Amino acid sequence: MAEQPLLIVSNRGPCRFTRGPDGEVTAQRGGGGLVTALSGLAAVRPVTWIASALSDEDAEMAARGPYRDGDLTVRMVVHDREEYDRYYNVFANPTLWFIHHYLWGLATEPSVDRNVRLAWDAGYVPVNQRFADAVVAELESAEGDLPPVMLQDYHLFVAPADIRERVPEAVIQHFSHIPWPMPDYWRVLPPEIRQTIHESMLACDVIGLHTARYVGNFLASVAQFTDARVDTEAATVHFRGRTVRVTSRPISVDPEEFDRLAASEAVLAEREALQAWRPEKVVLRVDRTDPSKNVVRGIQAFELFLSDHPEWEGRVTLLAKLDPSRQDIPEYTEYMGAIQRAARTVNDRFYTTDDWQAVDLRISDNFPEAIAGYAEYDVLLVNAIFDGMNLVAKEAPLVNDRDGVLILSENAGAHPELGEHALTVNPFDLQEQADAIHTALVMPEDERRNRIAGLRAQVREHDITRWVEALMDDLARARPEAVER
Amino acid sequence: MAEQPLLIVSNRGPCRFTRGPDGEVTAQRGGGGLVTALSGLAAVRPVTWIASALSDEDAEMAARGPYRDGDLTVRMVVHDREEYDRYYNVFANPTLWFIHHYLWGLATEPSVDRNVRLAWDAGYVPVNQRFADAVVAELESAEGDLPPVMLQDYHLFVAPADIRERVPEAVIQHFSHIPWPMPDYWRVLPPEIRQTIHESMLACDVIGLHTARYVGNFLASVAQFTDARVDTEAATVHFRGRTVRVTSRPISVDPEEFDRLAASEAVLAEREALQAWRPEKVVLRVDRTDPSKNVVRGIQAFELFLSDHPEWEGRVTLLAKLDPSRQDIPEYTEYMGAIQRAARTVNDRFYTTDDWQAVDLRISDNFPEAIAGYAEYDVLLVNAIFDGMNLVAKEAPLVNDRDGVLILSENAGAHPELGEHALTVNPFDLQEQADAIHTALVMPEDERRNRIAGLRAQVREHDITRWVEALMDDLARARPEAVER
Repeated sequence: MAEQPLLIVSNRGPCRFTRGPDGEVTAQRGGGGLVTALSGLAAVRPVTWIASALSDEDAEMAARGPYRDGDLTVRMVVHDREEYDRYYNVFANPTLWFIHHYLWGLATEPSVDRNVRLAWDAGYVPVNQRFADAVVAELESAEGDLPPVMLQDYHLFVAPADIRERVPEAVIQHFSHIPWPMPDYWRVLPPEIRQTIHESMLACDVIGLHTARYVGNFLASVAQFTDARVDTEAATVHFRGRTVRVTSRPISVDPEEFDRLAASEAVLAEREALQAWRPEKVVLRVDRTDPSKNVVRGIQAFELFLSDHPEWEGRVTLLAKLDPSRQDIPEYTEYMGAIQRAARTVNDRFYTTDDWQAVDLRISDNFPEAIAGYAEYDVLLVNAIFDGMNLVAKEAPLVNDRDGVLILSENAGAHPELGEHALTVNPFDLQEQADAIHTALVMPEDERRNRIAGLRAQVREHDITRWVEALMDDLARARPEAVER
Repeated sequence: MAEQPLLIVSNRGPCRFTRGPDGEVTAQRGGGGLVTALSGLAAVRPVTWIASALSDEDAEMAARGPYRDGDLTVRMVVHDREEYDRYYNVFANPTLWFIHHYLWGLATEPSVDRNVRLAWDAGYVPVNQRFADAVVAELESAEGDLPPVMLQDYHLFVAPADIRERVPEAVIQHFSHIPWPMPDYWRVLPPEIRQTIHESMLACDVIGLHTARYVGNFLASVAQFTDARVDTEAATVHFRGRTVRVTSRPISVDPEEFDRLAASEAVLAEREALQAWRPEKVVLRVDRTDPSKNVVRGIQAFELFLSDHPEWEGRVTLLAKLDPSRQDIPEYTEYMGAIQRAARTVNDRFYTTDDWQAVDLRISDNFPEAIAGYAEYDVLLVNAIFDGMNLVAKEAPLVNDRDGVLILSENAGAHPELGEHALTVNPFDLQEQADAIHTALVMPEDERRNRIAGLRAQVREHDITRWVEALMDDLARARPEAVER
């Protein structure tokens, strides 16, 4: 089945188009862990990738027809601007994102008001419909076997039902890159919305999630919100005459890519700057400014560590490399404010000198600087409240040059794989995080070496190729007659 | 087994002691749904009730030894004031309460800091220990068969393990009067705390919860946090050589008590006052000012209703009878502020006259006025975010004189029993609640009559006696040889 083409569908595509100084529109490789991970697929077989046009240049290119680059074809879906805003900035974020990460303060938020209803009826549903239209058009124009459809993430929960209805023999896979929440928390959404989402998901042949915990939550959710018959042992769901398999497939990274990146000019230049700046020890975090990432408690835990261990004042800095995220959404700008206030509080408390500052917030999208940080940390803090996987925890140890210690939240999707080589923390427990920072800083060299070796071995063995193969195997098993030749 | 004595254990006891003008300390019947419900037990057999001494007078009486009133013996446990404060005002509330009702805004709260640790180590655990001491003392002094131990609610999660260890042959039942949350939300607590709680619960012989949903959540929780073997079909848990049964036993009320109350002088006087005050229609809510009760969204939904249906302006008032709750706890005083602001917003928008106000907030502990409200409502709004049972939904229709319509949250424990006779709403959905208020107000008389008749029949058939019998049956089945003579 090596030559079987694939149909990848995600909100954000593998490239974006920009207009150069010469007025010509050219393609640039897009960023983000999802795109990187899925690009591995395009390396092994022909891929048609359906994604949203996100800029005027994207829309301009979309009007010219599919963009082709070797075996990769990109077909962009152009959206109405307001419809897309409701879909992305109201329904997908924060509504769904906050449900999947248990982030709502339910006493007062959210309210399902006209705004949220509109975001569903005239945002999420029609945008999913447009994606389904594009998928169906590809399927109908396919020569020979139907290419399997690989839908990505929470932006596309209601497309599967529509595709199944119009192309009953389609092979459909959905992969969620975020946690699946337990059924009670889905009750934030009105019954018909949560039912529509779960029934649509059951139009797939196979559903992929990062961990066994998420698989369990998914099975519990469909048992409550649909009339499906769930076999928990087998992780299968029987619904409307079809069987849906639900699998745990932890995503990973491409170690060779990080080897290359670490040796790149841009990263080496950033490393030099970091080395000139660095105090004796560096505690690093690299995150988007997303409330799920737990940046505020991380800063508070660092403050507690410094106050418990004053001998470290002047010698260790928390370097927080933060990529500003979703600043069109009030919950995110408020959280950004909370991060800044927390850092200010610590830096007001511990005397900043020309050479030292307790917390160094660097809020910018600077990928080479992040990779340079990966090389330079002594302690890597990944304390997410809940996190689908957290690729930083997999990437950074590959690049690190100082036998740095990973502190890892028990609620990160990476924890089942990496926990035994990390210092595990409960993300709500400030004292435990403060203690872990100290433990990591004073850890003997041989223990640090053993731990980072364990992390690297795990990631190199379970790399992105293995994840891609697992997804392919799931597809093959889902519908052998449709996928295999 | 009619004469088998019972040992009831709850934080709040069946009576409190006050000093009269003559300087003498006398007992007064305590309030609260729990005490009322459990008092039904004392009517059928001898009961020893262990509870906290909550005042100086209580402590004074405790020093004199157990208090006896007919077949009821009250033994009070005296606590250190600070220890009790940490146990009650930090750990039980808000920490546990907010976990059980999914109320934390996890992005920033709670942090498990020294305060919460101290509340556990030097509050919740030692207070539970004192309760266990009192239980063990009773068991050791019992003549003949051991009286079964009936522990009540989230204040006493870690007493069972201690009792089991010291009196292995004890018969122990625990009943939770609040929802049981899904395992992911327990992860707010550090691993050793959540494990201690769940293992202690499995020292019981039988565990009672209000609904099948809570039973499912409990089974999922112990499967994750202990090494117990769970049989989901049978709702049993096998742990350390013992079998624990988990049962769904919805609590209820005593209809005759409400018949009596409705005819009482105090209530009749309040009814007269309400009748003199009332507009054409009254939408009533009766709650504690607890964030789980969803008072703020209820007020916002009423505002939306009035703005959608201006013909009702001047004709219908939202009467919110609110019992001030836990005002020692910041989260509760903040919520009280949010309630007041929401009411002010509506009353500023809709012109208040001598005869009419949109929202009438009555924040006081006035039980006769609440019962008078039960008689006088046209619409009863029970829109709780999550609620263990909600007895108001069962009590009020018994007393109502206007064929009033119940609007009931799908997340109230009462919903499985009462939902078919109510207008069901999602507590987050403002529009649905606003629409339900309108539907209820314009509902034809015969439909209203059918619905309230259905509610009354359900409650009268499944009354408090039936709940008490179910608990007794569970005890008998748990350890036939120990309970039956």
